[in-house]
Amino acid sequence: MENSFATRMGKVKKSFIREILKVAGDPEIISFAGGLPNPALFPVDNMRAACVKVLDESARALLQYQTSEGHGPLREFIARRYRERWGFDASADEVLVTSGSQQALDLIGKIFIDAGDRVVLERPGYLGAIQALGIYEPEFVQVELEDDGMDTARLAETLAERRPKFIYTVPNFQNPSGVSYSRERREEVARLAVDSGCYIIEDDPYGELRFRGESVPPIRLWAGANCIMTGSFSKTVAPGLRVGWVYAPREVIDKLLIAKQAADLHSDSLSQRVLYQYLADNDIDEHIAVIRDAYGRQRNAMVAAVKEHCPPDVKCTEPEGGMFLWMTLPKGLDSHALFDKAVAAKVAFVPGTPFYTDGGGANTMRLNYSNSDEEKIHEGIKRLGRVIKDAVAGGCA
Amino acid sequence: MENSFATRMGKVKKSFIREILKVAGDPEIISFAGGLPNPALFPVDNMRAACVKVLDESARALLQYQTSEGHGPLREFIARRYRERWGFDASADEVLVTSGSQQALDLIGKIFIDAGDRVVLERPGYLGAIQALGIYEPEFVQVELEDDGMDTARLAETLAERRPKFIYTVPNFQNPSGVSYSRERREEVARLAVDSGCYIIEDDPYGELRFRGESVPPIRLWAGANCIMTGSFSKTVAPGLRVGWVYAPREVIDKLLIAKQAADLHSDSLSQRVLYQYLADNDIDEHIAVIRDAYGRQRNAMVAAVKEHCPPDVKCTEPEGGMFLWMTLPKGLDSHALFDKAVAAKVAFVPGTPFYTDGGGANTMRLNYSNSDEEKIHEGIKRLGRVIKDAVAGGCA
Repeated sequence: MENSFATRMGKVKKSFIREILKVAGDPEIISFAGGLPNPALFPVDNMRAACVKVLDESARALLQYQTSEGHGPLREFIARRYRERWGFDASADEVLVTSGSQQALDLIGKIFIDAGDRVVLERPGYLGAIQALGIYEPEFVQVELEDDGMDTARLAETLAERRPKFIYTVPNFQNPSGVSYSRERREEVARLAVDSGCYIIEDDPYGELRFRGESVPPIRLWAGANCIMTGSFSKTVAPGLRVGWVYAPREVIDKLLIAKQAADLHSDSLSQRVLYQYLADNDIDEHIAVIRDAYGRQRNAMVAAVKEHCPPDVKCTEPEGGMFLWMTLPKGLDSHALFDKAVAAKVAFVPGTPFYTDGGGANTMRLNYSNSDEEKIHEGIKRLGRVIKDAVAGGCA
Repeated sequence: MENSFATRMGKVKKSFIREILKVAGDPEIISFAGGLPNPALFPVDNMRAACVKVLDESARALLQYQTSEGHGPLREFIARRYRERWGFDASADEVLVTSGSQQALDLIGKIFIDAGDRVVLERPGYLGAIQALGIYEPEFVQVELEDDGMDTARLAETLAERRPKFIYTVPNFQNPSGVSYSRERREEVARLAVDSGCYIIEDDPYGELRFRGESVPPIRLWAGANCIMTGSFSKTVAPGLRVGWVYAPREVIDKLLIAKQAADLHSDSLSQRVLYQYLADNDIDEHIAVIRDAYGRQRNAMVAAVKEHCPPDVKCTEPEGGMFLWMTLPKGLDSHALFDKAVAAKVAFVPGTPFYTDGGGANTMRLNYSNSDEEKIHEGIKRLGRVIKDAVAGGCA
């Protein structure tokens, strides 16, 4: 009965990253492959206190079925944060709680994409979005990500020629590149989307993790009702609790709610309440400052180690926040071919090609610094540098 | 931008049940409309103890990202239960943890259904499945549910003529009807599916809630690798923790895993671990016996009240387990038209039509007894009986 699967399943492959993470499971390997937050920074004691409190106060209520929209006070917390941080006129009614922001992407794909619809995303683009949206069989159109954001001249042409359903973007410390959009690029992307009547999906899991430079407002500031924002507590609190959200105009939330109810009725109630209690009883900004500080040091260690240990024609981004750095090897080197050699040398990364829907990226790789301490980062990049140098010397095309 | 939604969203409506549950939110209304377990039976203290234990023992691990397959020991618990209860050769590798069994239905729809594929289900059929699968735009073919299961003669014709992708069935205490399949019907459904090379989705959320008669093995006993079972802890422990599962052959699990990862990466980790700890530290069968006993009494109260308060030509099923009873009014009465009158009389139910994909069911309704105590059941059915009698007298077609 093998051939009875839906057509859409013929087009998606088992995540390459899954396979890579398995290899990287060897404890001797220093892995820059995953996208995990640093567990040493999880607010374990305060989460435990929040958990005990909600069980003492409302166990019977939280164990029952809930509404599909999500826990009311949590939705209000999310809306209030948008109001306070960016002055958006956000209300809890415009917030839908999802099972992580990954589910937000699935639901967005479900309500918008007919097979063959065009979807614009950055080149390279976020693999989780490629996977979630890819299930609905769009045609992806990648627009080059430059140092300060998407190539807006190319975006303008793409919008005119291809009439995409929406633009998907990660404007802060993008995954996989670490690149952030300048204020000008944000304004321009917003203007282009509004002018062409196209939605923007503004995915912002890392926005609060800025350790350098000045915060820039979300694209939504300029795009207004054309913008659908997604967010997550995975990077600021903990990813094991699957709690993310969509913040969007009511007519979009209405459709998402139908899809959400069909998908899983509602997100986990225990986690929503524990998370809300944690947020109510603690200063989340104080906690985020601790994460920011640590990731900033880890990022500095990685950038410095790359400069010290890699050949000078190896380029890497120097992110102002987030969890990833993007490395470009000299032309002719193939990061896939390097991967096995790197694993033999006990260091792992993600080769760049899965982040390209159009081929390309063979000489690129993603490196994660959030899940390794400075000492490991130094040692791991030293190992990687040696592998790259050997490849340059030996030819590893 | 209203018209930029995907075609599939034009075909699904906001759940009628959602609207009904809102009406039924009035505390003066005795509601038989929902499908909620009795919260008085939630094992609150033992769940609290399990929660504290997992946080003390593995907080940092459980707060991190997890594998998409689900928590290993929980998958093994589920597989072992299939081995012990039914002698199935089940392994943890054949179990995927989902965010409630609702998500299992969504993922099954995603991996199997191309638009226009035929899907067979009972008539009346489970609304949650109609919603989850409906998103993928199948053509539903309903086969009449008789007193002891699906009309297998009609099923045989349907399989031959319509070549469906799969048969969806709830063989134990079906939602909405309360009907259970006899052993003979199970064997026959299995034989027909195997002969025509068609999958069976055997959804069994209520199987453990039998309060009368003898347990009958799942259809899987006879259908083997043609069978995909789904299950849930929502009815045996608590639904607020969104933990369900699929038990299926490896090649199906492989595809589901791809869809699961794209849908939400993994199910909530806190809830999976708390649930597993609860199952490890307590005798779940003892707990289920308490639920069974209570629901049996509630069901008896409802069946007796219907006989006492409703006109003699009102028929209702007499379920051997589960949470629902199905009422058929005299021909010409319309349960939709009765609904407003019932709400005015402070009692609520779900009119039958949403459970039919082909129209029909106008004179039917679903009544839930798990979420009301015997006194409320008696009073509520008394109110409903009066509304029905008035309608019979006045004509409410």
